[in-house]
Amino acid sequence: MIGRLNHVAIAVPDLEAAVAQYRETLGADVGAPLDQPDHGVTVVFITLPNTKIELLYPLGADSPIAGFLAKNPAGGIHHICYEVADILAARDRLKAAGARILGSGEPKTGAHGKPVLFLHPKDFNGALVELEQV
Amino acid sequence: MIGRLNHVAIAVPDLEAAVAQYRETLGADVGAPLDQPDHGVTVVFITLPNTKIELLYPLGADSPIAGFLAKNPAGGIHHICYEVADILAARDRLKAAGARILGSGEPKTGAHGKPVLFLHPKDFNGALVELEQV
Repeated sequence: MIGRLNHVAIAVPDLEAAVAQYRETLGADVGAPLDQPDHGVTVVFITLPNTKIELLYPLGADSPIAGFLAKNPAGGIHHICYEVADILAARDRLKAAGARILGSGEPKTGAHGKPVLFLHPKDFNGALVELEQV
Repeated sequence: MIGRLNHVAIAVPDLEAAVAQYRETLGADVGAPLDQPDHGVTVVFITLPNTKIELLYPLGADSPIAGFLAKNPAGGIHHICYEVADILAARDRLKAAGARILGSGEPKTGAHGKPVLFLHPKDFNGALVELEQV
């Protein structure tokens, strides 16, 4: 069911420093910061040859990653995103297996403009998993 | 400098359950468990179309992931691994930029039989980063 690893998201406490580090020290292909007010984050995409890293930085008062950074002041790996061909079929298969979908259980439009769902970390080895329909 | 994302490693508290979940619920291509006594882990490779997930489970009394699982009983994303062409050149560039290399600072032979280094998470946004020469 799951396909490619679409991205690994890393929450960072200092976006400028993280951008400089990935661009200059690690020599990666780092994009420009993109504010995503609907998602409460500023995102920087790092394009690797086979997948992407997304740096996440809080935007606005109710950022969904503010709590994560409060618990992890140095930052940390926030989630991984697997691609699926049919997100509703994926959701139904996961629910039938007893996995919990975060939020309403209905796909939302994610940071890439595509339907996404997040799965409960306690059901997935402590890892927050995003599914994105591609 | 960094190339492909070689893998994402997830430490799991119950390897059989994690294998069943990735194989049956998530429908992924999951390999057989491989004991790696030199590294203190049992590893299961999950082959995605563009990269790998590695499930890590403690092996032996001094497993390097025992402490992580004690702090994260449900498991969690343990590290990400970037490929580099020349690990000594990568190390020297990182050291010159002030990044700390874990351990002796000399590459060791990693779980894939290739030279690896681990970088200090506090220098990399709270994310444990492995570099592997490929």
